[in-house]
Amino acid sequence: MTAAPQSKRQPAPAPEASSLLALHSPALAGLEPRLHGVLTEALAHPGSLFRLRLVLALGRAQDLDDGVAGQLAAAVEFYHTASLLLDDLPCMDDAAQRRGRPCSHLLHGEAATILGALAFINRGYALVAEATAALPFHLRTEINRTLDRCLGPSGLVGGQALDLAFAQSPRTTRAVGRAALGKTAAMLRLALELPALAAGASPLERRQLRRLSVYWGLLYQGLDDLRDLRLAAATSAPKTDGRDSALGRPNLALASGLPSALARLHHLERLAGRSIGELVACGRFWSILQVFHRQLSAPLDSA
Amino acid sequence: MTAAPQSKRQPAPAPEASSLLALHSPALAGLEPRLHGVLTEALAHPGSLFRLRLVLALGRAQDLDDGVAGQLAAAVEFYHTASLLLDDLPCMDDAAQRRGRPCSHLLHGEAATILGALAFINRGYALVAEATAALPFHLRTEINRTLDRCLGPSGLVGGQALDLAFAQSPRTTRAVGRAALGKTAAMLRLALELPALAAGASPLERRQLRRLSVYWGLLYQGLDDLRDLRLAAATSAPKTDGRDSALGRPNLALASGLPSALARLHHLERLAGRSIGELVACGRFWSILQVFHRQLSAPLDSA
Repeated sequence: MTAAPQSKRQPAPAPEASSLLALHSPALAGLEPRLHGVLTEALAHPGSLFRLRLVLALGRAQDLDDGVAGQLAAAVEFYHTASLLLDDLPCMDDAAQRRGRPCSHLLHGEAATILGALAFINRGYALVAEATAALPFHLRTEINRTLDRCLGPSGLVGGQALDLAFAQSPRTTRAVGRAALGKTAAMLRLALELPALAAGASPLERRQLRRLSVYWGLLYQGLDDLRDLRLAAATSAPKTDGRDSALGRPNLALASGLPSALARLHHLERLAGRSIGELVACGRFWSILQVFHRQLSAPLDSA
Repeated sequence: MTAAPQSKRQPAPAPEASSLLALHSPALAGLEPRLHGVLTEALAHPGSLFRLRLVLALGRAQDLDDGVAGQLAAAVEFYHTASLLLDDLPCMDDAAQRRGRPCSHLLHGEAATILGALAFINRGYALVAEATAALPFHLRTEINRTLDRCLGPSGLVGGQALDLAFAQSPRTTRAVGRAALGKTAAMLRLALELPALAAGASPLERRQLRRLSVYWGLLYQGLDDLRDLRLAAATSAPKTDGRDSALGRPNLALASGLPSALARLHHLERLAGRSIGELVACGRFWSILQVFHRQLSAPLDSA
């Protein structure tokens, strides 16, 4: 994966992104109705599917088998879905709306929502194990470590804990960054690294992907923080936005001030672009990342 | 694994059961304090460690590497610990005490308790993947399917959903059994099958182990149901027992009446004993199961 393939095999058209979620869904026939409701509802309103599309695009760019890329993509999206279901719970962000609809716990209860999140996580692990079962020992070991690091206390679980405890922290820019690294960057790292590991990317490429996940994670979270402030300022703000201040959650613009936050986000955007440039120098196919970079940083143009 | 080894290699003494949990604990240095509290507290008061001891004993009996058996044992115990942390939450059983101490969510909050459960589950998957990484493809595939089946909607997650929804079900003995199969039998199946799969047990042995997990699961849950009724009847009942009736949870004795429940439990005890007999006919080392069988069915003698 160090040389740039000039002509790529044209992959067979893969099932459309959202139908992949249905294909790998943990919602079995005969499941207890409330749990079934959580699972089907979450998949029926899937959001932008940024992570799923990213894994699929990287899988194709790296000539990964379509079935394998689809399993990895669904797995990452399931982990992400689980984290949103849990984040919205009354004991966490106590959100009322998600993707323009009432939150899962308001429709199906907290218990079924927690169990639904576990079902998505369980299915995510099963899909990654199945997708990577034929890989050599050392790659499976790396993938296992990456999952452990990105999803556990060093990643998503730890980041969410820091997020919730932020009100009792010094509320510095640094503390904001630590929570964002766990919550947001870890999941993007998974989306970038899983297909790369499965396709045998070089250590240099993987290092750049990890860097990119940090820049993207901080940028994505910082833009979300700006949006939260702006919605708080608007009188017609939906009830579940503009809440970082009220809940004492990390917010870059609140911690560092708006001008400093904007400068920082522009800097992160350039750093991410530079990482993508380094990757494209390793192989032309990495230029697919530019599409996702433009999408992710688009809100910065109007900020 | 079909012939009975008459003389077994004496394994090196393994670290003591509870120190295995500390060795593989997801509680990292520098973790957010509440999350750290959930993890360390749960491991400091680990209960009987029935599942952990079972995996270790079966691993040794089948000549499994001590390190591998320890990882599998810790993984199963971590999954079990996670399920207890979540079961006790206000939105599930709303329990006040566990193992003679206040429940985790009362000490560290609901959010940290949910995140702690996720940290245990994440570590469980990482340990199983690491312990089984060197096994041949077909065994890893079987192990992955077994995890998916035992922990997901067909197992633990689905069983807990049925448990919570029982009040709205016809409350039959059959419905009681369905919830117990998911909640209790699935976890015992994991404890019995994981070391057997890792050691390359025969299909016949694995079939008997699955049967045993069903008999043990129903027996264990039925005995727990009797205990719940007895504590409800006692005036000095702790606050969190005798709650099946109040919460509308499945209870064999409530569904079928005490005499019928007792007869059923004695029948299950005999069936489990017969399965163990069939296993011992496959290999003398399986007789270690009798120790666990006596321990599990001991409350039946005084029932």
